[in-house]
Amino acid sequence: MATHKLLLLPGDGIGPEVMGEVKRLIDWINAAGIARFETEQGLVGGSAYDAHKVSISEGDMAKATAADAVIFGAVGGPKWDSVPYEVRPEAGLLRLRKDLGLFANLRPAVCYPALAEASSLKREIVEGLDIMIVRELTGGVYFGEPKTITDLGNGQKRAIDTQVYDTYEIERIARVAFDLARKRRNKLTSMEKRNVMKSGVLWNEVVTQVHAREYKDVTLEHQLADSGGMNLVKAPKQFDVIVTDNLFGDMLSDIAAMLTGSLGMLPSASLGEIDAKTKKRRSLFEPVHGSAPDIAGKGLANPIAMISSFAMALRYSFDMGALADKIEAAIAAVLASGLRTADIKSEGTSAASTTQMGDAILKEL
Amino acid sequence: MATHKLLLLPGDGIGPEVMGEVKRLIDWINAAGIARFETEQGLVGGSAYDAHKVSISEGDMAKATAADAVIFGAVGGPKWDSVPYEVRPEAGLLRLRKDLGLFANLRPAVCYPALAEASSLKREIVEGLDIMIVRELTGGVYFGEPKTITDLGNGQKRAIDTQVYDTYEIERIARVAFDLARKRRNKLTSMEKRNVMKSGVLWNEVVTQVHAREYKDVTLEHQLADSGGMNLVKAPKQFDVIVTDNLFGDMLSDIAAMLTGSLGMLPSASLGEIDAKTKKRRSLFEPVHGSAPDIAGKGLANPIAMISSFAMALRYSFDMGALADKIEAAIAAVLASGLRTADIKSEGTSAASTTQMGDAILKEL
Ligand SMILES: CC(C)[C@H](C(=O)O)[C@@H](O)C(=O)O
Ligand SMILES: CC(C)[C@H](C(=O)O)[C@@H](O)C(=O)O
Repeated sequence: MATHKLLLLPGDGIGPEVMGEVKRLIDWINAAGIARFETEQGLVGGSAYDAHKVSISEGDMAKATAADAVIFGAVGGPKWDSVPYEVRPEAGLLRLRKDLGLFANLRPAVCYPALAEASSLKREIVEGLDIMIVRELTGGVYFGEPKTITDLGNGQKRAIDTQVYDTYEIERIARVAFDLARKRRNKLTSMEKRNVMKSGVLWNEVVTQVHAREYKDVTLEHQLADSGGMNLVKAPKQFDVIVTDNLFGDMLSDIAAMLTGSLGMLPSASLGEIDAKTKKRRSLFEPVHGSAPDIAGKGLANPIAMISSFAMALRYSFDMGALADKIEAAIAAVLASGLRTADIKSEGTSAASTTQMGDAILKEL
Repeated sequence: MATHKLLLLPGDGIGPEVMGEVKRLIDWINAAGIARFETEQGLVGGSAYDAHKVSISEGDMAKATAADAVIFGAVGGPKWDSVPYEVRPEAGLLRLRKDLGLFANLRPAVCYPALAEASSLKREIVEGLDIMIVRELTGGVYFGEPKTITDLGNGQKRAIDTQVYDTYEIERIARVAFDLARKRRNKLTSMEKRNVMKSGVLWNEVVTQVHAREYKDVTLEHQLADSGGMNLVKAPKQFDVIVTDNLFGDMLSDIAAMLTGSLGMLPSASLGEIDAKTKKRRSLFEPVHGSAPDIAGKGLANPIAMISSFAMALRYSFDMGALADKIEAAIAAVLASGLRTADIKSEGTSAASTTQMGDAILKEL
């Protein structure tokens, strides 16, 4: 049996707690002889800053590069609100994405029937929702240069951020999205602001070309990102897969997540290119929720997003789709049984702790 | 009595129909001797392209500059989807905003009780919602240079858009927002992505300084634009006034609009700086909805957003707040009486036409 190397980066806030449940799941998989995972652990975000005055150390970057997959918790918190910009907690995550070449961010937004009530939207609008947002993750305004603040004198400063996209960056993310659509309901919606942004014009053009050349069997539709956002709120079930740039993807995937009523449930995968020789790709898996410093250390956090991020790792990095399906079924079964952490429970009912939720999922497996 | 000069730019799609109802309202105001409005009319968007191969003619730009206020309908439609980028319908609107210096875009999102049911959100989440989004409108990625597509050879192109903000641009929009908050519930939420964008860092810094220097009596809060978007969907009533940049404002104000369940109801005002001598400011008023080409020419469009945009003109450009209040009360009364255009009617009921809705509001006045 091949050994798979994982780097665990729990990060800050509730990160370590929810990662704890993934560790127990890994131990169970190893003990059951289903696969062999070897784990290392590192620091990222505020915890790396506290230890080394950086948002991630060179040593941990090297481990991330060597690992078959990185499992990431969450970063940030008020404690580090005024550290220098270069070493703010988020910088660690952004460096991992960029240096590992993780250009494709997959964010499923699924509304579990048992939780539809938790949404701020009407049940009939979100029940059964199952969309996949494919966000470009290593380009756009996140990394484009110049990215500066200049002092102009007279109390005036000028801040500049630059959105840059090259044809090949749009092509490769479009292919990831079209491939996913083929395995789902065969529909892709591309979102940009071509009426205002040149990057939107190029985005639209390239996605249209990739479609015409390679994916004529998939239905392609274009929406402006602002009306796309409105349509997400109005009638989200019209979508199957959505592909969009880094910044629009940040906004739109968070909104899609909120529709489901349960941020604590949603995983994400960030994938690099497939190596022509080894057929492997770099990858990182993280929950969509943040570090929730207000509830950190209290055993209240919902570990489901973290556990299902690990399920995505099994599916996308280790070709263990069947085990991933099993874990997802176990989560659904535990929810159907009525167990709830504080974030998803209804008023007046009692809440399970992080560990109790982890226990229940393990037991179901 | 002073004569006020208006330039009416109905634009495309349903623009002319909804503008028709504003014309009747103006005639009524003139006839009743309440004020004296002199109107001119021009072309913008696709209709300007059809007539002159531009998105707005120099003649109409001159009229807009000379007018006391511009009343704008809507632009765009599939007919003009493949006209050259420089003369696409939206370019006319963007030029008006930029050349008239309309840096402050006010977008109220109000949920009329009679219409709360039309929202995709649960009634208790949106009923009574009343927020004001203040969007910076002449800066950021909309107008920053370079804004180019370059051919790199080998089938590769590179698209660049540039987000630029100077201190003074952030200061003046912050002041508009703080002033509005003072007249409302005294709370301002500023949204940016300071964890990723340098313009977000400067935005945050400048808003904080303006607050400390001039508006300590207003409660100021900062949210990252992505979590701000989530909070808008989850619990929008936490907000009073939101201030944000041009692109985030585009996304967030559309989402806020959608929460109310009635895009056809929402007006907007775009304001320039107050001239130190004349105490006047340039201004443009437009509905938040688009040109809705699918229903254009059928008499189905809801004229309320257009009429209440005109009410905003009365309030912000002509110091006729009392008349604006009256018009808004007339709209609310007509809605309470049960009259509905097709976009807001519930299933099985019959719909009023554009003119019937205009009639009812005039009658109420
Ligand atoms: C933490 C932050 C830098 C990050 C982003 O903006 O990409 C987060 O919001 C996300 O969506 O993963
Ligand atoms: C028509 C378009 C250029 C415009 C914008 O992006 O600003 C519109 O979406 C708006 O919000 O007024």
